[in-house]
Amino acid sequence: MPRFMDVHDGFVGVTKEQLAEAHAADVAIQDEEGMTFEKAWLDPESGKVFCLSTGPSKEAVMRVHEKAGHPTGEVYELAVEV
Amino acid sequence: MPRFMDVHDGFVGVTKEQLAEAHAADVAIQDEEGMTFEKAWLDPESGKVFCLSTGPSKEAVMRVHEKAGHPTGEVYELAVEV
Repeated sequence: MPRFMDVHDGFVGVTKEQLAEAHAADVAIQDEEGMTFEKAWLDPESGKVFCLSTGPSKEAVMRVHEKAGHPTGEVYELAVEV
Repeated sequence: MPRFMDVHDGFVGVTKEQLAEAHAADVAIQDEEGMTFEKAWLDPESGKVFCLSTGPSKEAVMRVHEKAGHPTGEVYELAVEV
């Protein structure tokens, strides 16, 4: 199953509770798209969020994030990892 | 110890062997800066690389990457994770 990193901007000052809520919103609907959202990391100073997931396609990543209320068009398929 | 995500561009078409070599170059000198480079993911289509590390500072991340021959100025401190 392909793995993906997606990137969000604009999460300046977001707390751990808020990030957990956003992540839970993804997890709640991920089965509809065959996705598994594994991890999310936030830099509250710059507002960047990085989400690591596995699933069928970039489009599936984008659909889950859009339905969960935090759309992004910046999704990378991680064909190689070390 | 703070955790960091750094991002590199321009790794289009890079292979697993080449990414492993670049990552090994970081690991070989990371002790000089008190860094631990844990993981690197590559999208060879867009040329994006994401590196996850822990260590004392963003500047330490940048110094290791610069000495290893693949500098980046795009480093985020991941104060929050879920």
